Amino acid sequence: MERNPISRATMGRLPAYLGFLEGLPDDTANISATTIAKSLGYGEVQVRKDLASVCSYGRPKIGYDKQSLIVALEKVLGIHTLSEAIVVGAGKLGRALLGFGGFEEYGISIRVAFDTNPYAGNPSIYDISKLPKYCSEHNVEIGIITAPPQVAQQVADLLVQNGIRAIYCFATVRLQLPPNVTVQYENIALSLAHLHQRLQISQE
Amino acid sequence: MERNPISRATMGRLPAYLGFLEGLPDDTANISATTIAKSLGYGEVQVRKDLASVCSYGRPKIGYDKQSLIVALEKVLGIHTLSEAIVVGAGKLGRALLGFGGFEEYGISIRVAFDTNPYAGNPSIYDISKLPKYCSEHNVEIGIITAPPQVAQQVADLLVQNGIRAIYCFATVRLQLPPNVTVQYENIALSLAHLHQRLQISQE
Repeated sequence: MERNPISRATMGRLPAYLGFLEGLPDDTANISATTIAKSLGYGEVQVRKDLASVCSYGRPKIGYDKQSLIVALEKVLGIHTLSEAIVVGAGKLGRALLGFGGFEEYGISIRVAFDTNPYAGNPSIYDISKLPKYCSEHNVEIGIITAPPQVAQQVADLLVQNGIRAIYCFATVRLQLPPNVTVQYENIALSLAHLHQRLQISQE
Repeated sequence: MERNPISRATMGRLPAYLGFLEGLPDDTANISATTIAKSLGYGEVQVRKDLASVCSYGRPKIGYDKQSLIVALEKVLGIHTLSEAIVVGAGKLGRALLGFGGFEEYGISIRVAFDTNPYAGNPSIYDISKLPKYCSEHNVEIGIITAPPQVAQQVADLLVQNGIRAIYCFATVRLQLPPNVTVQYENIALSLAHLHQRLQISQE
């Protein structure tokens, strides 16, 4: 089945829909987009559009079947199929991600990080040499690169060699990757610079 | 003067242009878009477009005046007018940002963080009660919120009361802010979820 990726904005609202539906009384069988919209403070059109990207169960005058909608949301959010992401580069940012909550509501767990210089005080940080074994024993789907830019490509190659097909890269480099690998870049300094520039323009 | 914000993508390349120009021999007076593009591995059209958003000094057959272009890039990047950003919420993420390099190349420095529970071991983390005094004595332009979502609005109000007009928010909330305050939201969990979803689609 071919489907389009759900937009970031919609994705950001899905946990709220799920939380709302799960909080409804057990005997609620159906729920309308109007009720959902009012309860969450979203626009009704937005709710319909968001939910259409997840399922197609909404029926006129009846609304959505609550249980089907919960199942569909859980599926998209991967709640029951917790995926594992690993961090490579256990500097401050890497360690922050390792200890960060909030990934579980999107069905992703981060349990370990790897570094060439494993931080002694933290049992979740392994030596990089253990990465291949770890990947072969766990269903690691995502590799997060928080290593310095100079070694980021090397890290990416290692991840790809070990079967990882999705990379989230905080290093400020462009990676050379095989076409079957999905990548997303994050540059916090750049976001901050962009905000700063918007501030300057607003003050002119 | 009214100008449009420079896109994130262009902004991301500006430090590379500046680094390249500064590395040229002293006696280079002019430089063409073609040479810049070849040296940095960018497309020529992209280089022209990027530089047009910064200055308008490129002349046919002659190219850009190197010194003017350096000055224009430095101005946009704010290199000589280092702006200060403060972090509120000195948990793992806040401390990671506090210790993170890479902001200086965009003219932004992060020197201190504030928390209700200042971390004893780090002299750069102050008690939140010191924020008003700190802001009155320093030219703080940006407030970074890495506090928990439950207190994010309160933190935002405090920042605005103390004259801060740009907020970079890592807490997963929508802030209520006066119209003269510029805000940017960052949600790392959501980015990771989005990447995960793209991975799943690519495997269907």
